Amino acid sequence: MSGLTHIGPDGRARMVDVGDKDVTERVALAHGRVHMQPETIQLAIGRDTKKGDPIAIAELAGIMAAKRTSDLIPLCHPLPLSSVKVEIQPDSRANALIVTARVKTSGRTGVEMEALTAVSAACLTLYDMLKAVDKAMRIDGVELLEKTGGKSGDYRKAGT
Amino acid sequence: MSGLTHIGPDGRARMVDVGDKDVTERVALAHGRVHMQPETIQLAIGRDTKKGDPIAIAELAGIMAAKRTSDLIPLCHPLPLSSVKVEIQPDSRANALIVTARVKTSGRTGVEMEALTAVSAACLTLYDMLKAVDKAMRIDGVELLEKTGGKSGDYRKAGT
Amino acid sequence: MSGLTHIGPDGRARMVDVGDKDVTERVALAHGRVHMQPETIQLAIGRDTKKGDPIAIAELAGIMAAKRTSDLIPLCHPLPLSSVKVEIQPDSRANALIVTARVKTSGRTGVEMEALTAVSAACLTLYDMLKAVDKAMRIDGVELLEKTGGKSGDYRKAGT
Amino acid sequence: MSGLTHIGPDGRARMVDVGDKDVTERVALAHGRVHMQPETIQLAIGRDTKKGDPIAIAELAGIMAAKRTSDLIPLCHPLPLSSVKVEIQPDSRANALIVTARVKTSGRTGVEMEALTAVSAACLTLYDMLKAVDKAMRIDGVELLEKTGGKSGDYRKAGT
Amino acid sequence: MSGLTHIGPDGRARMVDVGDKDVTERVALAHGRVHMQPETIQLAIGRDTKKGDPIAIAELAGIMAAKRTSDLIPLCHPLPLSSVKVEIQPDSRANALIVTARVKTSGRTGVEMEALTAVSAACLTLYDMLKAVDKAMRIDGVELLEKTGGKSGDYRKAGT
Amino acid sequence: MSGLTHIGPDGRARMVDVGDKDVTERVALAHGRVHMQPETIQLAIGRDTKKGDPIAIAELAGIMAAKRTSDLIPLCHPLPLSSVKVEIQPDSRANALIVTARVKTSGRTGVEMEALTAVSAACLTLYDMLKAVDKAMRIDGVELLEKTGGKSGDYRKAGT
Repeated sequence: MSGLTHIGPDGRARMVDVGDKDVTERVALAHGRVHMQPETIQLAIGRDTKKGDPIAIAELAGIMAAKRTSDLIPLCHPLPLSSVKVEIQPDSRANALIVTARVKTSGRTGVEMEALTAVSAACLTLYDMLKAVDKAMRIDGVELLEKTGGKSGDYRKAGT
Repeated sequence: MSGLTHIGPDGRARMVDVGDKDVTERVALAHGRVHMQPETIQLAIGRDTKKGDPIAIAELAGIMAAKRTSDLIPLCHPLPLSSVKVEIQPDSRANALIVTARVKTSGRTGVEMEALTAVSAACLTLYDMLKAVDKAMRIDGVELLEKTGGKSGDYRKAGT
Repeated sequence: MSGLTHIGPDGRARMVDVGDKDVTERVALAHGRVHMQPETIQLAIGRDTKKGDPIAIAELAGIMAAKRTSDLIPLCHPLPLSSVKVEIQPDSRANALIVTARVKTSGRTGVEMEALTAVSAACLTLYDMLKAVDKAMRIDGVELLEKTGGKSGDYRKAGT
Repeated sequence: MSGLTHIGPDGRARMVDVGDKDVTERVALAHGRVHMQPETIQLAIGRDTKKGDPIAIAELAGIMAAKRTSDLIPLCHPLPLSSVKVEIQPDSRANALIVTARVKTSGRTGVEMEALTAVSAACLTLYDMLKAVDKAMRIDGVELLEKTGGKSGDYRKAGT
Repeated sequence: MSGLTHIGPDGRARMVDVGDKDVTERVALAHGRVHMQPETIQLAIGRDTKKGDPIAIAELAGIMAAKRTSDLIPLCHPLPLSSVKVEIQPDSRANALIVTARVKTSGRTGVEMEALTAVSAACLTLYDMLKAVDKAMRIDGVELLEKTGGKSGDYRKAGT
Repeated sequence: MSGLTHIGPDGRARMVDVGDKDVTERVALAHGRVHMQPETIQLAIGRDTKKGDPIAIAELAGIMAAKRTSDLIPLCHPLPLSSVKVEIQPDSRANALIVTARVKTSGRTGVEMEALTAVSAACLTLYDMLKAVDKAMRIDGVELLEKTGGKSGDYRKAGT
């Protein structure tokens, strides 16, 4: 018994059967951050135009990526999402932009991967938008903060 | 002058014009890691079956995601990739699996985003494959190690 | 209060939460048209072969595009569609081909965007199929005719 | 009356309306095989490494393709799949690798196309993985073995 | 001789062979507009926040859709785009938002469909962003303004 | 040395490096067939309407699938196709519809997989269009007939 649900008793990868699970409301919250030079943060947040804003573009990329999760992660179930929110905030002390994603569904399996995928895509998009001035940015701390709904019980990151 | 190539002089987001750039061979190398419990690492690497191997599945997911980069990152150019390699190795001291991706193209713009996207997708897939036993895994240190080719010059991460 | 549901109270774009909405049958009907030279219309409708028919290809492209709506429209929810019909008819007086799309779902949000996307993709495909003989075609009048189902009430275009 | 559900009474292609069908559990089982030289089979199954295994990669490709069925087959409904399993076994007497796929959903229409698409994609991937040594491989016998659930009744291939 | 390049001499649809065409720089410019109530225009353009701006989101959706053109339009060639720009401006006299798209490639066939697809997707996204306050918006005047490059000669819309 | 180009010397799956290969014109020709009841063939080919024709829809699905090959086959390179043709003919003696696909590119690697994927998708679409009257159809004989271009030399199926 491997304990890995995506591996069957015969050792094969599978999209695990969730047909017997209840349709319940499931929520997942994840975050991550992109470390960068203080000047890069200022460039990212200091724009005085409504258009071409790296932060708004990265938030949108995160939302769109959440919808593509089952295309990217081989054994993820396709799920009809009922809500996706992505929020990017500067953390000046940490010299980072913090990305948070909250995803909801009414379905038979959780949306942890959708929340983590949204965070990752938003971080990658920040990198892409800002790389002309700073190639040494680093994506760190992408992790699940909280998940609710479903039989396996709720999860909350230790210390939060 | 914002210095951000994806933002035009009018402040609008754009897919920057690379039509005047030369077609040259361009390579990018990126890495990242997934921190996890020592027991989770053992589970990931210790499998004695050829099928359902989390590491092989995550490497494959990284390769496939590199091909989808321009779908995920809003202002990325679609590029014909000539090579993608993704390699996952355990780092027992760091309690992490290390993901490295190397991408090549003959094209008019670099493949940094393809390499970083491959790393991120492989990390997310490791999370998905292993989350049944460890929800506290954390993706860290996703960054560009090296890029060569193109007019803007080569880049190598400081200290490498 | 902006009144724009895709913009949250904090001013951020979001995929609006429809988790509390009822699953009801929702239908949307949209239309549009492609203006062209009378000779182009004759070419489009006068084909005497079963294969390579621009009208049949454009109807099919509309149906397929309806299924891709949430990939194209950033804040659209992914929805399991239960029916899509696209119909193209010539309007000789208007020198146009008229495209009509009807989409149904059992879901928590409406399918207006799916119907409008089907119409737009069918119009674009007509343009693509016929552009070798007429580059001056024009897509006009893409609009929602009717929507039913859901709490916000039914809508019917004025004058219809 | 054509008897073809994807063709409407007006002779047009359509995504047939399944809105009145019940949501029931539906299962489909399909198989197919790739004929090849005995040496190619040995190469495919005899690998002594966990990584780069053609069979595991083809099984994964089949699972992922099942999720893309409605993108590939023009009039297929998008469906939330609850389980996908793909299994490849050698049949030494037939000089073939046998691919079997089992797909489940709770939905308003069946998953025959998802199972057949998974089988086809796995067969194509085996071809791709092995074509460097054997270009004369042949995909044969892709067919539905069994389908259950839904009003039209169960189906089982004659003689099975 | 139908004159329709996407229909072969045997009457079949085909992706026309461009293998003998030269790789040249090709540009296409297209526009379109979304008619709406004056109050809706004000709502669209008057936002005083950098985030959640309907115009910036629609411009981005247009750029991203240009990259998906060959997925949406059945007989379009996949092309490596070298530049995409989408610009939305209010036209207060016409009670409309005007969408303009400019696309470039170095390739064997033109990018008219990419420019028209970008315009259509941006118009649809404006509709989606604003439909909560105005369902009677109408997309009009989607047409090619100009195309350059390639053997078939340049095109410029009459009167421009 | 496994001889499998998609497996590296370290045993890992990889998208093999084609950066050093020449850009040449490459063509691949593949075929396959769908066996069915004589009555089903008559239904497929005897339609007296231009719309909703199973054969035309399946040919189109084959063309579109060729463009998605690198999404479906994990280690396939994304390629800019210069031509795709799919043709379906009845073979009354064999009680089958014969699907043939011809694909061309100017690139660094061959298009065998694109041709085989086009054939498979067309066969699957025929199944989908006709399954309401005949669930016992069987896809057989999907194989490469011919490939030209590239350093590894031309290939022609034995006996053709």
